[in-house]
Amino acid sequence: MNNFAYQIPTEIYFGRGQIKHLEESLLKFGHRVLLVYGGGSIKRTGLYQTIQTIFSQSGVESFELAGVEPNPRIDTVRKGVQLCRQNNVDVILAVGGGSSIDCAKVISAAVKYKGDAWDLVKNGNLIKEALPLIVILTIAATGSEMDRFAVISDMNTNDKLGTFSPLFYPKVSILDPEYTFTVPKNQTAAGTADIMSHIMERYFHNIEGAYVQDRLSEGLLKTCIHYGPIAYHEPNNYEARANLMWASSLAIDGITWRGNDVVNSAHPMEHQLSAYHDITHGVGLAIITPHWMKHILNEKTVGKFVDFGVNVWGIDSSLDPYEIADSAIKKLENFYASLDIPSTLREVGVTEEHLVTMAEKASNGLENAFYPLTSADVLAIYKASL
Amino acid sequence: MNNFAYQIPTEIYFGRGQIKHLEESLLKFGHRVLLVYGGGSIKRTGLYQTIQTIFSQSGVESFELAGVEPNPRIDTVRKGVQLCRQNNVDVILAVGGGSSIDCAKVISAAVKYKGDAWDLVKNGNLIKEALPLIVILTIAATGSEMDRFAVISDMNTNDKLGTFSPLFYPKVSILDPEYTFTVPKNQTAAGTADIMSHIMERYFHNIEGAYVQDRLSEGLLKTCIHYGPIAYHEPNNYEARANLMWASSLAIDGITWRGNDVVNSAHPMEHQLSAYHDITHGVGLAIITPHWMKHILNEKTVGKFVDFGVNVWGIDSSLDPYEIADSAIKKLENFYASLDIPSTLREVGVTEEHLVTMAEKASNGLENAFYPLTSADVLAIYKASL
Repeated sequence: MNNFAYQIPTEIYFGRGQIKHLEESLLKFGHRVLLVYGGGSIKRTGLYQTIQTIFSQSGVESFELAGVEPNPRIDTVRKGVQLCRQNNVDVILAVGGGSSIDCAKVISAAVKYKGDAWDLVKNGNLIKEALPLIVILTIAATGSEMDRFAVISDMNTNDKLGTFSPLFYPKVSILDPEYTFTVPKNQTAAGTADIMSHIMERYFHNIEGAYVQDRLSEGLLKTCIHYGPIAYHEPNNYEARANLMWASSLAIDGITWRGNDVVNSAHPMEHQLSAYHDITHGVGLAIITPHWMKHILNEKTVGKFVDFGVNVWGIDSSLDPYEIADSAIKKLENFYASLDIPSTLREVGVTEEHLVTMAEKASNGLENAFYPLTSADVLAIYKASL
Repeated sequence: MNNFAYQIPTEIYFGRGQIKHLEESLLKFGHRVLLVYGGGSIKRTGLYQTIQTIFSQSGVESFELAGVEPNPRIDTVRKGVQLCRQNNVDVILAVGGGSSIDCAKVISAAVKYKGDAWDLVKNGNLIKEALPLIVILTIAATGSEMDRFAVISDMNTNDKLGTFSPLFYPKVSILDPEYTFTVPKNQTAAGTADIMSHIMERYFHNIEGAYVQDRLSEGLLKTCIHYGPIAYHEPNNYEARANLMWASSLAIDGITWRGNDVVNSAHPMEHQLSAYHDITHGVGLAIITPHWMKHILNEKTVGKFVDFGVNVWGIDSSLDPYEIADSAIKKLENFYASLDIPSTLREVGVTEEHLVTMAEKASNGLENAFYPLTSADVLAIYKASL
């Protein structure tokens, strides 16, 4: 197990009706609030009106950044920064999923930074100060509600970059599974794939003796495999929504990867897909992951696939290791298919056009991945996924 | 799943050589430090000298509360309070396991409290302020390094009580598995039993749909079952010590019980044994737990024992539920026996003498346990454990 540091400063309020903590959470930091959200879903579900009522009851003056994109863009961050500065905002309230939260995180830091917000996306070390951030989560997927990461895109240059800072941890996150009842089926499926990808990215590591992390990862994967289909078919199933929501936070907060940190593989490959084709992140991950697995399965990695097959998918441990590995990958593919997630990149509009450039960009850093990948490897994985 | 709140403010530095963070951690809070520790082991291992060197290099003035008992006593807490007040202490450094840490926690709050420290043990709500606490962990067991609990005994009245406060979270905990290489074999065994008990106390719950918590608990239990014997037989095995140490913290920080909180069963029963006979906490838990399980196994609880048997101990799920349950309890007994933990109370000096009184005291609150227990139930469990 590697050395590590671990701390989760975010205060989580989990469960039905936890929005009752919103007023006290906001007022700890001030009365002038920037409300950041995406599409119109928070208006359709009534959450927007609930928040407005709390604002007016507690004397909050609010300003709005609406329309944050599914892959949030640096131009939107810049708009948010301007709104904060013009209105002397004290605290940011992000309502939504990873897109709104990530956008709000970078706004929170860029307000306090003299240069352009994109600098902070390229280099998190420049972040020295940030406005406090409160989150109301409405989809279980990225884990951004309890982590220090943010991913922002510049569609002019087709760049989608991740950045991080300890100042990005939300001060408070309100996690009410009922807010996810209205998540569309395809987004429920994509969210589940995203959670699982966060776990698998670190589950496939080479760090000796990171046993406890592996066993916790398996527990979280089993939770997604059990409840993903239930939430997909019964959107109002509280138990399924609650388990997926808490799994999404725990998948990325550190218990699965502190001590066995390894460079992500599927995420950098998917980020290029989103940057060039603006596809749904979780769908891109689900399409690529099985092909990545097939590409890297060999005598060095098969042991990890055996763990994955036996402990996650319940495959008979007495079978041949490669049979277990192949069967585990097949089960993962079948699982995605059971959630009606497309299985090829063509289905989501990706063509051969930018593949070589994307593979070049994605492979930057992948020499340190669980199984090192060159741009030729990434290109092969993209082509197999087409 | 129940509603819950969750936050882990403690900063963890985990791994070899993490004592390098001690100086910066202390100096954040001041120069006047109360060092709290137990027996002479920190002197024998050289850790005491290392700490003294850091103190003198960083200009720390230190005061000492040595000799904290394995079941820390309220008189020792009072001595610590006096030392803090006399010397105007800024920050407390606890070095050891749960005993030293728990003692330091109650000192930290009692210094700021006008009445007697025992008030705070009886009622954690009275705690409004506390000195900052830094921890260096030297045994994996209680999880006190990353939680808000403390257990203190008054041997005059044979009371051993738990108390808690959010102010009890250590500010920083340094977790270096190498510091546990010198833990005696019997304490390694007892520590493993203590970690497992923390997990099992909450694993056996009646909360519907707390699935993710159960799967994480199983992962932690498997870690203890895998590494307990390795650490017992190879005290210097870093991998085993590291996994047990991190499991001890995660077993109690909340991921196993936030959302499925239930009143402990074995702990209250064991606390009476320690209060009357000053036995090793983990040993008492290991003796009682299988008898508690046998006592409560019935048609209402058997499903949970099936999960326990199949998912933790790998028992064939196609067997009869009671066969699985019996076999799981037997495997737990065999596991404790493999660590040479006594299997009867008589072996550790407990007689029939106080059993009735102890059962009366222990059963207070157990009407809300996973399986409600009366004083007659507790007495039966004590007698079966004799």
